[in-house]
Amino acid sequence: MSSTLGRTSTAPKIERLRRLMEARGLDAVVVSSYQSVSYFGGTTVMTQVHLPDRLGFLVARRDGAATLLFCNIEISQVRTQTDIEDVREYVEFAQDPTVELARLLRELGLVGGSIGLDTRRLPAASLATLQSELAGLEVVPIDDEIELAQAIKEPAEIEALERAANVTLAALETGLKSLQPGCTERQASSAIYLNLMESGGMPLFMVFASGERTLQGHPESLAAPMPPGTIWRIDYGARFEGGINSDLARTGVVGEASPEQAATLAALRATQDAGFSAIEPGRPAKDVFFAVRDEFKRQGLPFSMPHIGHGMGIGLHEFPMLQPACDIRLEVGMVLNIEPMTLIAERSEGYHTEDLAAVTEDGARLLTPPQEGLLRIPA
Amino acid sequence: MSSTLGRTSTAPKIERLRRLMEARGLDAVVVSSYQSVSYFGGTTVMTQVHLPDRLGFLVARRDGAATLLFCNIEISQVRTQTDIEDVREYVEFAQDPTVELARLLRELGLVGGSIGLDTRRLPAASLATLQSELAGLEVVPIDDEIELAQAIKEPAEIEALERAANVTLAALETGLKSLQPGCTERQASSAIYLNLMESGGMPLFMVFASGERTLQGHPESLAAPMPPGTIWRIDYGARFEGGINSDLARTGVVGEASPEQAATLAALRATQDAGFSAIEPGRPAKDVFFAVRDEFKRQGLPFSMPHIGHGMGIGLHEFPMLQPACDIRLEVGMVLNIEPMTLIAERSEGYHTEDLAAVTEDGARLLTPPQEGLLRIPA
Repeated sequence: MSSTLGRTSTAPKIERLRRLMEARGLDAVVVSSYQSVSYFGGTTVMTQVHLPDRLGFLVARRDGAATLLFCNIEISQVRTQTDIEDVREYVEFAQDPTVELARLLRELGLVGGSIGLDTRRLPAASLATLQSELAGLEVVPIDDEIELAQAIKEPAEIEALERAANVTLAALETGLKSLQPGCTERQASSAIYLNLMESGGMPLFMVFASGERTLQGHPESLAAPMPPGTIWRIDYGARFEGGINSDLARTGVVGEASPEQAATLAALRATQDAGFSAIEPGRPAKDVFFAVRDEFKRQGLPFSMPHIGHGMGIGLHEFPMLQPACDIRLEVGMVLNIEPMTLIAERSEGYHTEDLAAVTEDGARLLTPPQEGLLRIPA
Repeated sequence: MSSTLGRTSTAPKIERLRRLMEARGLDAVVVSSYQSVSYFGGTTVMTQVHLPDRLGFLVARRDGAATLLFCNIEISQVRTQTDIEDVREYVEFAQDPTVELARLLRELGLVGGSIGLDTRRLPAASLATLQSELAGLEVVPIDDEIELAQAIKEPAEIEALERAANVTLAALETGLKSLQPGCTERQASSAIYLNLMESGGMPLFMVFASGERTLQGHPESLAAPMPPGTIWRIDYGARFEGGINSDLARTGVVGEASPEQAATLAALRATQDAGFSAIEPGRPAKDVFFAVRDEFKRQGLPFSMPHIGHGMGIGLHEFPMLQPACDIRLEVGMVLNIEPMTLIAERSEGYHTEDLAAVTEDGARLLTPPQEGLLRIPA
């Protein structure tokens, strides 16, 4: 996040876009999402997430040159982060970001060219402006290709993801140790987050709930007591230097687990292990989904997940998604979360566990140690 | 965030959309952004922000009926939050959210109709899918109108914004008191965030920096010491029940302020007061911008802001934006942040202060007490 910490080299990432332009016969690629601008542009501008009208763009050309375009307020930060020298700015409200993008494309000689865009992220109004400003421009949606260009991580990226994930787990462990009997959901989640922040993680999301709210998708902690015997679960993540994210989940109990509760966690862990075992280079991502789903059946656990995991990086759900229609072949260097969840409606209990693995020639290499039993909060 | 806390009534908000349909001759309005779906739909689904492919929609019709469409994973939470009964779901990956939206519009008899959309938020690919699925559909961009329909707050909303802002300020005050001499930026920001979370705020963003990094737009805390005499600044916010956000800024010093530092803060505060004084119903929003900018000149402070404040609510930058081209007339019930910032390059110091005010018949009513001098961290 600082000039003192050194810059990532963007050149190898821009090279991925250049190869994509060659393969698709494009003159340039323009990306606009926080994830892709951060990844290819080497700068993390959080207002891209929080202030969606304040657009930011990366333009990469066939010759390997790259230009960033950001709101003037963000420029000093961008310059301390990126190694891209050509950084342009627009003045918010005085200038329309997309009109300025069109002006830039004109200046770069790209009028009448063929340009790849991330159309699942670019706002519809922005595309309309671009097309009315540059009538001759051919726009080619290349969302999947842009995602795929981020899917295989360099060794340094895998190390950063591994470190981020383990710092995140350590914050949970330390946070749980600090809790007093009778603590509320909110006290628990706050203690965990405090440790995470002190370790350099910026809060990204925090699902924490106990009892029947564990059945919801993404419930947040309340100032609610957690009676003994209650199941609680956490699904949380933080953003680290360079925009690398963590995303992990654990399930625990207040006080002592019943044999039934312990058995459910063990069964869920078996489904996760089935996922790890299915990871090998060359297999389609959907095979991992089916391996986990089949183990749910064998274990007799309710299964209702549209996906059972996903690629990890600057985006929280990157390619490949481990879902039943994903034919992307696993490759060495992909980093995947496997996160089975089961909802036991009759006991009002949801269980969720999530860990990180890298795809290697020998299969999955676990980057985090999966949970061995239910975690505990003192009763 | 919970069924135990009661639901907001969506009817008065949907009524705003219904009047908009009448005024513009529309058969329906479809909104897709986190901000607008949360505001009009009475449910806050954070994955709309973090997982941008997992689209969520609200469809409001001319007769006042409303329908929500979300990913199946989110449905149980949506049902505990919203009072809208017609909640539809799609299964992620098995179904395309926009194809399902088109199917819903067809079922609701809206094919061939005229539909208002938030095209500055809807992804370009989603609009393309909608238009190819429903060839007869007339799409009308109504982004400004949708923003305007959220600009005037109900008394209960103003109370919630006031409470959120003051809880946020109290967390800063308590956090600062807990700091030891020699603490790092990260220890300071973590202590403040911990108090905020314990008070029910979910971390949203945290700009915290000292020294020369105060000149950057949105710098984040580092494990860096803060020597005596150093200026630090914070710009931070949290999300509270119902999705209401806070957004405040303060500037402080480590140890004792120099007379020059104290004078800069006093001058900045004078520009903020000029903004509050310019607030009155009927005046265009840009007048507030010019009042602040003119006071910067009188005070001899460097000024480079594209806007000097903004409307507040579920969005961080809501209408009206206090910027030089904004002709929107201020109205009773608008809630505005005024946030002057000045960058003193030769001293490597950035100063920023931000407070919340409601527009009343008598002008601005301050909802937070502006800072009276530089805050202090012990040296």
